[in-house]
Order: sequence, then C-alpha cells, then structure tokens
Amino acid sequence: MQLLRDKFEAAWQHHLDTHSFWQAWAARDPETAGFVRDSLQMPGKRLRPLLFALACRAFGGDALTGLMPAALALELTHSFILVHDDVIDGSDLRRGVPSLPKRLDSALCEKPSGHFNGNDVAVVTGDILSSLAMDSLAQTAAPPERVLGAIRALMRAALDTGHGTLLEINAAHTGLSDVSTDGIERVYALKTGAYSFALPIRLAAQLTGSTPPFDVDDFGAHAGIAFQLKNDRQDLQHWLQGGRLPDDIRDGRPIWAAVYAWGAADADRRRLFEHPPGAALQDVFRATDTLAAMGQAIARHAQAAQAHLADPALRDFVAEIVKP
Amino acid sequence: MQLLRDKFEAAWQHHLDTHSFWQAWAARDPETAGFVRDSLQMPGKRLRPLLFALACRAFGGDALTGLMPAALALELTHSFILVHDDVIDGSDLRRGVPSLPKRLDSALCEKPSGHFNGNDVAVVTGDILSSLAMDSLAQTAAPPERVLGAIRALMRAALDTGHGTLLEINAAHTGLSDVSTDGIERVYALKTGAYSFALPIRLAAQLTGSTPPFDVDDFGAHAGIAFQLKNDRQDLQHWLQGGRLPDDIRDGRPIWAAVYAWGAADADRRRLFEHPPGAALQDVFRATDTLAAMGQAIARHAQAAQAHLADPALRDFVAEIVKP
Repeated sequence: MQLLRDKFEAAWQHHLDTHSFWQAWAARDPETAGFVRDSLQMPGKRLRPLLFALACRAFGGDALTGLMPAALALELTHSFILVHDDVIDGSDLRRGVPSLPKRLDSALCEKPSGHFNGNDVAVVTGDILSSLAMDSLAQTAAPPERVLGAIRALMRAALDTGHGTLLEINAAHTGLSDVSTDGIERVYALKTGAYSFALPIRLAAQLTGSTPPFDVDDFGAHAGIAFQLKNDRQDLQHWLQGGRLPDDIRDGRPIWAAVYAWGAADADRRRLFEHPPGAALQDVFRATDTLAAMGQAIARHAQAAQAHLADPALRDFVAEIVKP
Repeated sequence: MQLLRDKFEAAWQHHLDTHSFWQAWAARDPETAGFVRDSLQMPGKRLRPLLFALACRAFGGDALTGLMPAALALELTHSFILVHDDVIDGSDLRRGVPSLPKRLDSALCEKPSGHFNGNDVAVVTGDILSSLAMDSLAQTAAPPERVLGAIRALMRAALDTGHGTLLEINAAHTGLSDVSTDGIERVYALKTGAYSFALPIRLAAQLTGSTPPFDVDDFGAHAGIAFQLKNDRQDLQHWLQGGRLPDDIRDGRPIWAAVYAWGAADADRRRLFEHPPGAALQDVFRATDTLAAMGQAIARHAQAAQAHLADPALRDFVAEIVKP
C-alpha cells in the first residue's frame, strides 16, 4: 500500500513539475501559478487513485503500470471539483487553511484588477484542471477502445457530480421543510459517490478490460453517502464541542444533519433554524440526537458498500475510509 | 450551406430535447433548467460547427454524416466557454439580452438561498456543458484512434482557452503601461482563435484521417485575432456613436483598443484612463484614430488567415466571418 502511495506521489509531483501548461503559467505569472501549485501540492489522502490501483489489481490487471495517467486523472478531477466547489460554496477554508479562491483574492486585491478577483481565477483554474484530467486519461497506455470507454465513464461521473450540485442548490432554494434525508442522500450519492467511488472502479474495469463482479453504482452511492456523512458528522461534532461553526450550517443549507434535526424537532425548536445559528441551534441538534442518527446512517451505508466487495485489499481499504 | 445549417439546427434541437441530462434537470427544477435551455436555444451563427463541416468536405470526408456528434461538441464547448466567461467577466449582457448568470440571479433571488446565487448555478452549468461536449465527441462514428485524437485536440484547445483567460486577467493586473497590442493579440489567439478556428479544422482532420495542408495554429491565431478585433471594434464604434459603454472599457480592461489608444496618446490624455470612462475618454479614442488602426489590424490578420485556405468554400466562409 505504501509502495502504491509513493509511486503515485512521485507521479503527481512529476506532473506538476513537467507538464507544459504549469511551466508556461509559472513563467508568465509565477505568483498566481505558485498559489495554485502550492494548493495542489498539499498532502492529500489520494483516495481515488489508490482505490483505482487496488481495483486494477483486484480485476487482475497490473496496478498502475501503464495506467498511472488514469490515476493522475482521478486526482486532477478531484482537484477540479474542489476548486469549483469552493467558488460555489463561497468557502473561506479548505482542510483548515484558506481556500484557493480566498488565497487568490488576497494575492490579487492590492493590484489594479479590471474587476477580476480570486473567484475568477479559480473558475478558470478548475476548467484547466478538468482539461488536464481528461488529457491525462486520454494518454493511458491501453487499447483505444478501452481508453474511450474510460473517457465516457469520466464524463458520466462529471455529469452526475454536476447534477448533484444542482440538486443541492435546488434544495437550498426550497427549504428544510420540503427536503428529506433520503433526498439529501441522493445528493451525496451523485455529488460525492459517483466520482469518488464508482468512477475509480469503473476506470479500473474499463482499462483492464474486465467487468466488475458487483453493482458499481450501488457501491458508489453507499460509499459516497457514508463518506460524506462521516465528514459532516465530524464538523458537527467539532462545533457542538466548542469548535468552528460549519459553513453549511452558518449558511442555512439543507445538509443531512439539518434536515434530520428539523424533522425530529418540535415546532418551537424548528423556528430556531430561522435565526442566525448559535447555542440555541446547538441544543436542537443535541435534543434530537442527530449525531447518533448520523452514526447509524453511516454504519448502514458503510456496510452496504462493503458488502459488494469480495477482494480483501479493496474491502479493507474502503472499510477504513467509510467506517463510522 | 443552408442545408448544413438546417441539419445542424435539427441536431442541436434534438440534443436539447432528448439528452437524459436535460430531461432529468427539467423534471426536477423546470424553472432553472428552462432558463439554461432558453439561452442555449437562442439563435446563433453556429460558426464552429459549420467551419468543421466545411473542413470535413475540404478534406475529402462526408460533411456531417456520422460526424454530427463532433459538430454538437463544438457548439456545446462554445456555450460552456460563454457561460464561464460571463461569470468571470461579471457581464450583465450577452448578445443584447441579460447574461445567463444575471438571469439566473433574477430567478433565484426571491427564494431562500443557502447563499447560492446565479453565478454558482452558472459555474455548474458551464461544467456540465463541457462534459456534454466531451461525451458527444466521444460518440462520434469514427475509428477509436481518430476519436481519441479528436478528444486530445479538444483538450488542447480548452487548455489554450484557459491560458488565454489567465493571460487576460494577468494583463488587467499589470495595467495598460505594461501591455502591448502584440501581447493582447496573443491573448485573442489563445482565448478565441484556438477553440473557434484551429479546433474545428483539427477535429475535421483527425476524424477524416487526413493531414491539413496548412499550419492550423497560424490560421487559428490570425482568424481568432481578426474575429475578436472585429467584435471589439463594433462595440467601440457603437459607443463612440452614442451607444452603450462596453463592459471592458467600463472595467478598465486592457483590450486591444485601450492598449493602442494609451500607447498613441500623450501624457495628458493617458491620465484620462484613470478616471471613470466618459466623453473625455471617447475623445482619446478619436484623437488616436483607434478605429482606423483596428481596421488595419483586422485586414492584416484576415488576409493572413485566408492565405492558408485553398478550398474555395472554406475560404469564402472564413472571409465572410473575419472581413473588416
């Protein structure tokens, strides 16, 4: 596992050091390019490339030999989605440090602007990362029919991710009373599950010329829901223990926890969702035992995801990611 | 030519009516999906698909038979770039009507928002159009090696477009004194020429299995510069005749006209660029004869673009688009 990780990190660094696009940008505008490069060089869990490599092995192919461009494509796609997500969410922080749009804003704000800001650079940066991902995937050393199948799988995942984001924005515009936890799980399955879990498996199957012995969409949906709920639950727990107010709750978005707590609360407590979130809203989450309900949902989806996997290495890896 | 146009319009309408993504979105959120669909259904010149079809013919292939998905991919790519451009530029208008981000803002602003706005939907919409473009191209009826070559050509053009946008933002941050008209022409070649002119030719060559008998990059650069200068010149002329102030001039961006006029102006007139643009700045453009200089640049680049083209139908079509 560590060997796979090291091989991937070396390839990732090589891509950032040598791809003509990064070199051209750095030569012209080292400051902005440097911000973007730094954010791509931050340590990451590399979940998607590792899941892909393990699936290649499970399907009887060589792990990564010749297929590294596809592993890079997965991490570039992830980076693209994070950058556009930070633009869309207006997030100030990502992994505890200022998000790329915010950092670009700070870098650019003291210069004449032509009314361009950090968000604008981040929109283009996301578009470029998306193109670099596709370009990398198209270079995978596999028969052209397989590479074309992989490209179509990536496009399908990108459409699902976009669809999930639109569902999420739509839910924010209809309000908590018109959304169910099932509806939010559908958002998580599309927005997180499709590209983070179903796509690596599907790319491995396409590129090794095999058929996955399980329902990849169902696996991806359950794993994605468990993974996203786990992240949400950590943020909520942190806040309830005196930590930072999660952006989603600050902005009144219909995340799973808010939808669940609203549904389980009485009329008096429901009204507290209309005020700026403070100690009173924390009490609503406590009174409705939302953390416990999330823990149960995570366990249920984690189990459903793992049930699909017969290969021990693949199953252990996914279990570690989605365990409650 | 009219036959090609009609065939393309029918295929475009068919795509918007039947693609599963549009149907799924419309079923869930008819209002927002309707805004996006309406904007895609606005009449367009369809330059890129027609240029592609004429190039297929010139290279000895069937015009559009089996290759329609690639023509659709070109128009979807154009739509993707326009939508993200309107986000990045903060444009209020596109082709004389409110831009998609503005229209989405109006549609969404009266509802609870979760802090999502029209720009956010537009960022996702652009991402989705980009994926639909790639997915369409991947379905072209041609040997897989050729389709893969076409996909790499599209990615190369997308990277050039992103690079051009970054150069443009960078130029806005360095200011008029540090930019030359040559530098701005390089922006136009990358941002407009690569995907609007070089890409259709390159796709036609890849998919018909032929080698273009001319330098596609040089053709694309000159045609793109002439085309963009022509648009800029129309906007400037309109303003000087009492029409609407162009957004680029309003926001103090280093477009060709501003860079030229600044360079040709004396020190007193240069200072006028630091104030909100009004009648005094109009006089600077008049005193420096910027419209005439633009006309000469357009003629020069139009001629250089056409000089590459031996096929009469292709040459006439391009001549009509880029003529001063």
